[in-house]
Amino acid sequence: MILNNDVLQAKGLKLNPPPAPVGSYVQCLQSGNQLHLSGGISVNGDDAYYGKVGTEVDLATAQKAAAAAILNRLAVIQHELGGFERLTKIVAVNGFVNSSPDFTDQAKVLNGASDLLVELFGPEAAHTRSAVGVAALPLNVAVEISMVVEIEPDYAG
Amino acid sequence: MILNNDVLQAKGLKLNPPPAPVGSYVQCLQSGNQLHLSGGISVNGDDAYYGKVGTEVDLATAQKAAAAAILNRLAVIQHELGGFERLTKIVAVNGFVNSSPDFTDQAKVLNGASDLLVELFGPEAAHTRSAVGVAALPLNVAVEISMVVEIEPDYAG
Amino acid sequence: MILNNDVLQAKGLKLNPPPAPVGSYVQCLQSGNQLHLSGGISVNGDDAYYGKVGTEVDLATAQKAAAAAILNRLAVIQHELGGFERLTKIVAVNGFVNSSPDFTDQAKVLNGASDLLVELFGPEAAHTRSAVGVAALPLNVAVEISMVVEIEPDYAG
Repeated sequence: MILNNDVLQAKGLKLNPPPAPVGSYVQCLQSGNQLHLSGGISVNGDDAYYGKVGTEVDLATAQKAAAAAILNRLAVIQHELGGFERLTKIVAVNGFVNSSPDFTDQAKVLNGASDLLVELFGPEAAHTRSAVGVAALPLNVAVEISMVVEIEPDYAG
Repeated sequence: MILNNDVLQAKGLKLNPPPAPVGSYVQCLQSGNQLHLSGGISVNGDDAYYGKVGTEVDLATAQKAAAAAILNRLAVIQHELGGFERLTKIVAVNGFVNSSPDFTDQAKVLNGASDLLVELFGPEAAHTRSAVGVAALPLNVAVEISMVVEIEPDYAG
Repeated sequence: MILNNDVLQAKGLKLNPPPAPVGSYVQCLQSGNQLHLSGGISVNGDDAYYGKVGTEVDLATAQKAAAAAILNRLAVIQHELGGFERLTKIVAVNGFVNSSPDFTDQAKVLNGASDLLVELFGPEAAHTRSAVGVAALPLNVAVEISMVVEIEPDYAG
């Protein structure tokens, strides 16, 4: 896939360096021609979103949080693959929204990530998705997203 | 696999048209010989289940909600594959139950989906499963289920 | 991979028989060269952890719960593969922590599982991971973990 940098810049967004590895887990791991990504939080450089959606965080802000979380994950993919040329499919986007018990717009929150993917990569970035509202998230972030993507075989490998 | 329509009819259940595509994501996507399915909600035609299980929704009703969610997903598979003949394994069923904090029968709720799969397809439909209780779900549905299934290669492809 | 039994014994831990199959789902299922594991609870023989983390269960105890859940899953892998020799990668560890709404150390809780994997198998057990806080879990367990692992093809198959 090819990331449209103009779209990124027009939105005032950018890809930052990927999160530093911590502890005993890794940010991504290849299995066959899929790359699995750890859950990434709604922190993309200085663009960081915390709090419970529905009470402390409103829908529009939560959508920005979802965008930050997906950019956080794209930074990992970019670093791992040396760009997005080998990225062939975004298979699954699993979205967890830090939700008050009566907040029911998790799908709209995740549109902040899904729409951005298609704006950045075009219609071939359409993906499967789940959106659920969880009681709490690490560091009290507003959104966490894990992913599975498909990549071209590495012929040089 | 072959779906036993007699079982479906005896239970007064049916497969409806799959949910219409909305937004930037798709209901299913093939990667290798697996089909990934987006999270599907406990709405199967007129059979729709909303509310928090444990307080607003009782166990028996929640089990029907899980059945509705899995039928919602089977409708997507049927539409994608033109039937169930190419379906070889139900790899993973990920069940999210809209739960009050003190409700602890998520496994029994998901039996409403797991048992139905085996009743409809036979023992070869046995699958791995996770069942968790989430704080909230999109549209306040009672149950959401995402899936991974395995399919035969498409020789005509 | 090779499990270091000395580490297990030094910690006073052990692998118990895998949970008995119940209902219409199975503890694990192979798809291609991956093994998918159902969500396993924080019960490893007599070592069982229940309650909501943040209020009823403290961080140190929750980390032991995560270790119990991952040992519960390793027991399934060991039983399925007849050992760990055919286990080549731990692809994904999906951790669900039974959390009070204000508990935000889910990542530290999951370190109880991630660190143990690396202590037992060495650095090749590094894996992707998600850690979320859910409203409730089956049987009121403290932690539930599902997994995807990669295995060598079964040449004898």
